[in-house]
Amino acid sequence: MDFTVTILGSGAAVPTSRRNPSGQYIQCRNRHFLIDCGEGTQMQMRKFGVNFNRITHVFISHLHGDHFFGLVGLLSTMHLMGRVKAIHIYGPVGLKDIVLMQLEVAKGKLAFELIFREIAPEESTVLFEDEKVKVTCFPLVHKIPTSGFLIEEKERERKLLADKAKKDGVKREYFHRLKKGEDIVAEDGIMISHLEYTEAAEKPKSYAYCSDTAYSEKTIKFVEGVNYLYHEATFIELLRDRAVATKHSTAKDAALVAKEAHVGKLLMGHLSARYDTGEEHVLEAKETFPDSECVEDGQIIQIV
Amino acid sequence: MDFTVTILGSGAAVPTSRRNPSGQYIQCRNRHFLIDCGEGTQMQMRKFGVNFNRITHVFISHLHGDHFFGLVGLLSTMHLMGRVKAIHIYGPVGLKDIVLMQLEVAKGKLAFELIFREIAPEESTVLFEDEKVKVTCFPLVHKIPTSGFLIEEKERERKLLADKAKKDGVKREYFHRLKKGEDIVAEDGIMISHLEYTEAAEKPKSYAYCSDTAYSEKTIKFVEGVNYLYHEATFIELLRDRAVATKHSTAKDAALVAKEAHVGKLLMGHLSARYDTGEEHVLEAKETFPDSECVEDGQIIQIV
Repeated sequence: MDFTVTILGSGAAVPTSRRNPSGQYIQCRNRHFLIDCGEGTQMQMRKFGVNFNRITHVFISHLHGDHFFGLVGLLSTMHLMGRVKAIHIYGPVGLKDIVLMQLEVAKGKLAFELIFREIAPEESTVLFEDEKVKVTCFPLVHKIPTSGFLIEEKERERKLLADKAKKDGVKREYFHRLKKGEDIVAEDGIMISHLEYTEAAEKPKSYAYCSDTAYSEKTIKFVEGVNYLYHEATFIELLRDRAVATKHSTAKDAALVAKEAHVGKLLMGHLSARYDTGEEHVLEAKETFPDSECVEDGQIIQIV
Repeated sequence: MDFTVTILGSGAAVPTSRRNPSGQYIQCRNRHFLIDCGEGTQMQMRKFGVNFNRITHVFISHLHGDHFFGLVGLLSTMHLMGRVKAIHIYGPVGLKDIVLMQLEVAKGKLAFELIFREIAPEESTVLFEDEKVKVTCFPLVHKIPTSGFLIEEKERERKLLADKAKKDGVKREYFHRLKKGEDIVAEDGIMISHLEYTEAAEKPKSYAYCSDTAYSEKTIKFVEGVNYLYHEATFIELLRDRAVATKHSTAKDAALVAKEAHVGKLLMGHLSARYDTGEEHVLEAKETFPDSECVEDGQIIQIV
């Protein structure tokens, strides 16, 4: 469970009893992120057992309401629940003013710091990076400036073959260097090979979030080879006209990106309220990319 | 079912799985109002079968987020669902800017007109009035300017005793005037008394909404004699200190207002998230005002 995505909202702009507007909680190597925050996201987090206080970074894709109307409410609730830890908020120009204006009229002051950073929507930029995880934004194609997000694990340390190391009397103080792939010449002159006492770690995993967007060839390079691709599929091909007019994707569009980018698996969401289930989407997508599914609110996806 | 209140949210600032933030749908003599619109109000309306499009007037009590964070989302959804009819929005200074700013960044335009009117929070003012219903605001006592709302039916026409009128050959063209209480001298010179052919209508009903507010003697005159009083009761007496510090009421405070204003029935809401049920509130209130209850999300109250 080192890398999971919890779907807080799999619907489009009009919420239904089945699908809330957009929101995803990402837990990756003990880092905790929120991508988008439509109205009711805090209620969904409570419903699905997500701990508000763990979240350190929020990434807002664009300023259509179904992707951010829940943000100021979430921040207010964090305050009322005693949060003191700063929170980082990444989003388009304008988001900061909207949040601050609404907090201002309440004449209250949050007990924690809001650290805003504006996303330049035309660029691919690293937004977050530490020794274990990296988050990058990249441009999508929608009616207003919109960013996708790529969450990548970094290379893990090699795994120690602890039993063998102990049996052979390898000193504990060498373990850390061996895991980093160093060979060590011990005090007695004997070479200790990292290949003998460690094995390769799991390959790092990656997840990309593309919502909202029309189909675009330019997306492909940004999501090339990710393990899981979440791509909006507001419509199916029957409503291609609506997809074109509103700069959204069909299930086929999403599947095309998945196929061309050689991803591991396609997850579709942001379904229009007119669709009760995602069955038609899945049928349509599988014609182009077999490993396709539609997500549901509350679903927890393990990125493997 | 001429006058009903649907509770969309009976909780305080932190939503729980049981109680959403504030929102009430009022249906009175075929007029349709929304009082307050906390985050998730549109989802509650959908859940409880309230038709968004019927609402013509929205009244926002004050600018704490749990009373208005759901407004812009509701307006956006109304637009996406095809609304073209203008909507009237009454609220404190600042509300208009907040709503317009959030709509502006989305670069969309609503297909219906928003008619804003600022409430002067220190005054009691008639906000809406037609031949059947009147809505008045009045000042409450909270940390920021806050208004309560009084919804009153107007006097109804007298009820025609139709069988008797037909039997005695009273002309149909006189019915309207008789119902208005006129006596008529017919063409043949005979007096037709309205008392003989009509009976008194039901007494007009009234409902008052007081949230958020500390206990205040000044509230009493504004809600004097209403059939149903909704008064916030965020706390019980055990937490009087919290109530005083946050300018909220206890159940006892709410009951005191109910008693002193001689209302018909007390409905309590805006319960702090720390209370799972309203049992303690009801016990406390009943000591002062026996006809007290706590409301629940989804409850429909007939004002009788």
